[in-house]
Amino acid sequence: MSDLKLPTRSEDFSEWYNQLVIRAELADYAPVRGCMIVRPYGWAMWENIQQALDKRFKATGHVNAAFPLLIPRSFIEKEKSHVEGFSPELAVVTIGGGKELEEPLIVRPTSETIIGHAYAKWIQSYRDLPILINQWGSVVRWELRTKLFLRTLEFFWQEGHTAHATSEEAEIETRQMLDVYTDFAVNEAAIPVIPGRKSAAERFAGAQETYSIEAMMGDGKALQSGTSHNLGQNFARAFDIQYLDKDGALQYCWTTSWGLSTRFIGAIIMVHGDDQGLIMPPKLAPLHAVMVPIFKSDEEKARVMEVGMKLRDELIAANIRTKIDEREGMTPGFKFNDWELRGVPLRIEIGPKDVAKGTVVLARRDKPGKEGKSFVPQTGLAEVVNTTLADIQKSLYERALAFREKNTHTPQNYEQFREAVETGFALSFWCGDGKCEGKIKEETRATVRNIPLAQSGGQGQCIHCGQPAKEQAIFGRAY
Amino acid sequence: MSDLKLPTRSEDFSEWYNQLVIRAELADYAPVRGCMIVRPYGWAMWENIQQALDKRFKATGHVNAAFPLLIPRSFIEKEKSHVEGFSPELAVVTIGGGKELEEPLIVRPTSETIIGHAYAKWIQSYRDLPILINQWGSVVRWELRTKLFLRTLEFFWQEGHTAHATSEEAEIETRQMLDVYTDFAVNEAAIPVIPGRKSAAERFAGAQETYSIEAMMGDGKALQSGTSHNLGQNFARAFDIQYLDKDGALQYCWTTSWGLSTRFIGAIIMVHGDDQGLIMPPKLAPLHAVMVPIFKSDEEKARVMEVGMKLRDELIAANIRTKIDEREGMTPGFKFNDWELRGVPLRIEIGPKDVAKGTVVLARRDKPGKEGKSFVPQTGLAEVVNTTLADIQKSLYERALAFREKNTHTPQNYEQFREAVETGFALSFWCGDGKCEGKIKEETRATVRNIPLAQSGGQGQCIHCGQPAKEQAIFGRAY
Repeated sequence: MSDLKLPTRSEDFSEWYNQLVIRAELADYAPVRGCMIVRPYGWAMWENIQQALDKRFKATGHVNAAFPLLIPRSFIEKEKSHVEGFSPELAVVTIGGGKELEEPLIVRPTSETIIGHAYAKWIQSYRDLPILINQWGSVVRWELRTKLFLRTLEFFWQEGHTAHATSEEAEIETRQMLDVYTDFAVNEAAIPVIPGRKSAAERFAGAQETYSIEAMMGDGKALQSGTSHNLGQNFARAFDIQYLDKDGALQYCWTTSWGLSTRFIGAIIMVHGDDQGLIMPPKLAPLHAVMVPIFKSDEEKARVMEVGMKLRDELIAANIRTKIDEREGMTPGFKFNDWELRGVPLRIEIGPKDVAKGTVVLARRDKPGKEGKSFVPQTGLAEVVNTTLADIQKSLYERALAFREKNTHTPQNYEQFREAVETGFALSFWCGDGKCEGKIKEETRATVRNIPLAQSGGQGQCIHCGQPAKEQAIFGRAY
Repeated sequence: MSDLKLPTRSEDFSEWYNQLVIRAELADYAPVRGCMIVRPYGWAMWENIQQALDKRFKATGHVNAAFPLLIPRSFIEKEKSHVEGFSPELAVVTIGGGKELEEPLIVRPTSETIIGHAYAKWIQSYRDLPILINQWGSVVRWELRTKLFLRTLEFFWQEGHTAHATSEEAEIETRQMLDVYTDFAVNEAAIPVIPGRKSAAERFAGAQETYSIEAMMGDGKALQSGTSHNLGQNFARAFDIQYLDKDGALQYCWTTSWGLSTRFIGAIIMVHGDDQGLIMPPKLAPLHAVMVPIFKSDEEKARVMEVGMKLRDELIAANIRTKIDEREGMTPGFKFNDWELRGVPLRIEIGPKDVAKGTVVLARRDKPGKEGKSFVPQTGLAEVVNTTLADIQKSLYERALAFREKNTHTPQNYEQFREAVETGFALSFWCGDGKCEGKIKEETRATVRNIPLAQSGGQGQCIHCGQPAKEQAIFGRAY
């Protein structure tokens, strides 16, 4: 990293984000326009996200598998809305092994079609259902405007694909996975999210119903952070996914799909980060604690490092991801800034005086300056660190929730609505008509993020047309 | 699975393999020629392989990252031997977002070029070295003759890519990773392997030296099961990967790469499997033990299942991957065959008599019939299961090693050599000349698998030309 200052978030949120991703070495631009390299520090966070999700997928009965990257172009054309949604975004392989291909292949933009084809082959009877498969991998969509993690030509994700005997089971699965994403966001990433139903206009191409979790970023904009789709029988009909029921009758299956991507790393950056850099939620942080040794002479260094290494080993033994910053030729102050930029939740300072007194200094990343500093005894350090990490996790969530609540408005009229979506979310009654939705987008750049599952009840008037409305929606500008 | 018999291995080894992969639901053919779907049972084995390797990579200081799938075509052309090796095998994307691309992109066949480009950007000085990165993913090579797991257009693997300040460090890294693969093969997969140096003809395209581990399959043929390449300065020069040394002079880095793929699953199948199906080495087995409940009435079923579920929970609590086969409408005999086909190391049978006596029947997959059966008490079952699994792991290794030794010959003349490679390996002095290597291949279909690192010493005469030779090589027909 360089020691230039980041732009502040209030000066230029977008540039703050771009520079932070590069300078904290989370990701880098690839030589192909719009593609990204996820660097080791960013990938370590993704591995933690993967573990946290995979555990939840397996606990709900899912297994992993791997389907091919290359899909016959004709597959994409089998489901009408799917082809309309995805055909403008395809990367097409036309040459293989030096020869022009008879049928071009597409690099998967998502795998409903090729997995649907496999399910049609594997499923014979009701005994084969449900099929509950997830896949970890990457997909390619030819995006024009890209931003690291948020929207790239290739991105990394998981995609779950399930097949069921009844419509009810498919809906239960769709909602269950939305709950899994919500639980993950809240309890692992410390990000409050709003689970809800997407409007028809914002549905996944080919879905009967799409649900999402929506989070508010530090600039008040929304980020769709995970989606779960009830595909009804659309793909089952397009790919002939049928089963024999208990009475020997042939039925179409009901399928679902759900995904969460490296985009979520963008959410973590934009929800928790501050003007000094990243703040990693402890549960997903690649490093929990970094120890910075402070010394002036070789003799002091030897004394400090001896104790430092002992403490590090104790912390690692207690499952605290700890590192000593032994880099030479850098001042402690430079190191402090560097690890603040990278968002390590806890810094441990240790110098000759600390060695003599049997203490260390703990500095919390989430509380700047003196407020976050404390002197703690070396004895029992792991326990204090664990407690502090848990408190940081909790504080980050509370702070993000307070920020969202402060910036979520319930406007009384369209003028107030316009104002609300300038800086945050508006929770407003909406008639459900796509025309109002379109007009609002045109006039305010805000879209229906979702219709929250938790409704306050009652009836109202559409914020745009004034017609009677039964449901409230979250409106906001979105990434 | 169907209840048709597999072909025996001696009848038709190749067909035995093909049918087994499909019927045990390890993998399936994809709609695109030569591509495969890795099904959940196969992927669970791959996940175990990934964990066992990843642990070793991290213990030797490596970190994971993700580089893009799509590579500018010009990159492949920068390293002379690399382009010669890979250009006939490329899948080329020529259309993106509906438009013809100015520069076609290739779907990565391997990532030396794109990673080299990134390293050139990231490395400034000796302080940035070494860089030790691994990537898990898939690559595409346009193969003409394909076979599930062994050779497919797309395959799954890990590829490590490192950069060092000196030639010595690069060689140490290359050999260290060969040792990691050897240790993994022997101690996790129960597969004896021969670590050695490849001949010049068999080197990776662009490598200065390639090392491999070679294993003998159940038909006596060789499978290259992992490779580690010392790339010298070839890629550093092609991609300008340079660093400032301590004296301020600009130097080219020395790089390595190393990989192990889903091909290794093929090795596990062909080394351990028998005429009944797969035999999974316990350390990598998706399931360690399957319990088959035996009963004739609902009342018996209730009694058996109560005890069965209690035992299953005890085994799972002891980290033994256990499942009860509760499928209805199938006889116990059918289930026995099914799990034998799938290679689960231990079967646990429990019926009303066992419940009454407080025992169960353990049946080892590696020892057919009575020899592998024992009655053991329910009390302390987890311990007995663990001990038995360890013994199966050990027996599988010993059996594979004995088979390889029996089928590895040290022919005294070329006639004996010809005979030896009909059914196994020949360990023979070789002059090192590519012409002899070529002739041998032409005449016997056997290739130099590698020149083992462990040499018996001494000198001899080349098995083909009779000229003085310093090293012995392993020759065999290969997959």
